[in-house]
Amino acid sequence: MTSIHIDGSACPLPLVEQSRVQLGHGSGGKLSAALLRSHFLPPLKNPYLEQLGDGAVVPVAGAEVVLSTDTFVVHPLEFPGGNIGTLAVHGTLNDVAMMGAVPMYLTAGFVLEEGLPLDLLDRIVGAMASAAATAGVPLVTGDTKVVERGRADGMYVNTTGLGILAGHSRPGPHQAEPGDDILVSGPIGRHGMAIMAVREGLEFESAIVSDTANLTPLVHALNHAAGSSIAVLRDPTRGGLASALNEIAQASRVGIAVEESLLPIPGEVRAACDILGLDPCYVANEGVLITVVRPSRREAALAALRSHPLGREACWIGRVVPDHPGYVVMRTVVGGSRVMDLLPGDQLPRIC
Amino acid sequence: MTSIHIDGSACPLPLVEQSRVQLGHGSGGKLSAALLRSHFLPPLKNPYLEQLGDGAVVPVAGAEVVLSTDTFVVHPLEFPGGNIGTLAVHGTLNDVAMMGAVPMYLTAGFVLEEGLPLDLLDRIVGAMASAAATAGVPLVTGDTKVVERGRADGMYVNTTGLGILAGHSRPGPHQAEPGDDILVSGPIGRHGMAIMAVREGLEFESAIVSDTANLTPLVHALNHAAGSSIAVLRDPTRGGLASALNEIAQASRVGIAVEESLLPIPGEVRAACDILGLDPCYVANEGVLITVVRPSRREAALAALRSHPLGREACWIGRVVPDHPGYVVMRTVVGGSRVMDLLPGDQLPRIC
Repeated sequence: MTSIHIDGSACPLPLVEQSRVQLGHGSGGKLSAALLRSHFLPPLKNPYLEQLGDGAVVPVAGAEVVLSTDTFVVHPLEFPGGNIGTLAVHGTLNDVAMMGAVPMYLTAGFVLEEGLPLDLLDRIVGAMASAAATAGVPLVTGDTKVVERGRADGMYVNTTGLGILAGHSRPGPHQAEPGDDILVSGPIGRHGMAIMAVREGLEFESAIVSDTANLTPLVHALNHAAGSSIAVLRDPTRGGLASALNEIAQASRVGIAVEESLLPIPGEVRAACDILGLDPCYVANEGVLITVVRPSRREAALAALRSHPLGREACWIGRVVPDHPGYVVMRTVVGGSRVMDLLPGDQLPRIC
Repeated sequence: MTSIHIDGSACPLPLVEQSRVQLGHGSGGKLSAALLRSHFLPPLKNPYLEQLGDGAVVPVAGAEVVLSTDTFVVHPLEFPGGNIGTLAVHGTLNDVAMMGAVPMYLTAGFVLEEGLPLDLLDRIVGAMASAAATAGVPLVTGDTKVVERGRADGMYVNTTGLGILAGHSRPGPHQAEPGDDILVSGPIGRHGMAIMAVREGLEFESAIVSDTANLTPLVHALNHAAGSSIAVLRDPTRGGLASALNEIAQASRVGIAVEESLLPIPGEVRAACDILGLDPCYVANEGVLITVVRPSRREAALAALRSHPLGREACWIGRVVPDHPGYVVMRTVVGGSRVMDLLPGDQLPRIC
């Protein structure tokens, strides 16, 4: 990869009204990070919260327990491949799994809008039940609130997951080292573009279907094949592949170099992105993981991913480098290089 | 208490549109119970969920862990005595404590409406931090989503709590026995009427202040004084004292007899209820607990409650009886008797 000049001041925060919450604060990009850093971390400061992973590792009865929480506000509530209920179960299971833990229990908190059709609620709760049963993780307690018409958008769902760390693998975004390989478990951009295609009324020969899936079997296979050689596990949801790689580069203070030609972007995702002027590297995924693995276990890790139906199209996309620490640089198909920065604001609101 | 005729068919579900979510589904009354029974429990069925307490007891690493989740949608976001943040911390801590567990960790999931003033957010997060620090329970992980203007009402907050059962006390709503005494830890109706007074613009000589508080020190004192003689612990939030007593009567298949003249209803709460046509027994509390205790430990339990500032006005309000199982009957100040039923629908929406 050719070296490129990186100017740290090139991508400042966008000029937005500074005194109110903006849609971009929920994007998973720079504004989200700024909100967290300025308005949540200082008052709530404690060593667990400062782990800043997909969840927290806390001691319980001598064990290492992982807690992770996520609220789902996806619009529309139903989309090809799933609904807000599927997403709420898979999303939190995956966050627990990305910490290296085995998910054990889920809780669910519902905000229902007055007027929500009960048959829609039934489909969503049914999908949650089915996703939880397939994963073997029971939903053990819940809560339901109702707000007046116009005070929500159908429904919102929070799920919180409890998992337990077993074995020696403790992946974390700060553990990437120069020389490590970067693998992705499958095609990117499908969840976000499935949502956008519905919202924008786009029609393709075959509909784009969300990839929402429980990734714990993939993590299990990876652990078996590469164990403590797995430095990082990440599910690139809000903000997509580019944001997840940026988080790793920043947390580990390393550079990341990826090859544009190797990124697994399905044709219909690329077509929809072209129509809407979006970059597939920033589009949310819900059934894909990235792993950063020590080079000696690269082939074993790839083989493990490919042995599972969810990872059949797993591939190598780049590596960790000592150059440009904190930055992700993509070698483009035409031979140039460009920085894949965090998005300043908002590409796709309410995708999860 | 005189015996009265109870006709089980007297209070059917109200006639409402059967195909959509109603505000009453969030009331904590009959419609809430029907929603849970018909739309959540059948698909999600598992032994943990069926415990139907304020949370679930689950095994983790050989310990008995309590998980409890609650979403807060109170309107307005700030009120005399607290804000949605105070409530979100205290509410979940109290639910964990009512299971007999010691709260250890909290998670928080935020839904923010575009346009929410950041200084209001700061006050709310600051109040959460302060409430969590006072309780000694860290908020270990969180999530923030942003929705467009008009898709929420400022903000909603989910909190999930993890606690650990220690000692031998395992209170539960199904454990009341005839002869047990019923104690309440303090004046009722203050939280709900503080909210309603703000909403309705009522002015009294002294403002009604929410009683929102962390009840774990009271539970600790009770455990120390009465241990396994504590049959039931309940914080009468949504649906108030009457709904909590009904849940106990139904879960334990016993009758409950309370004395109207002994109910601790502050003068300003009674006045506000009179103006608004509300019954204080159905108004939410956020810093009061009910306990059902074996008669031999009644005095010890009362003394323990009164030894703490939150329980200074604790009092005996009635007892568990073998008559009219499943029903709560109040002996009125004029010497009559009336059934305190679950509310069919909705008295006070969005009180927590």
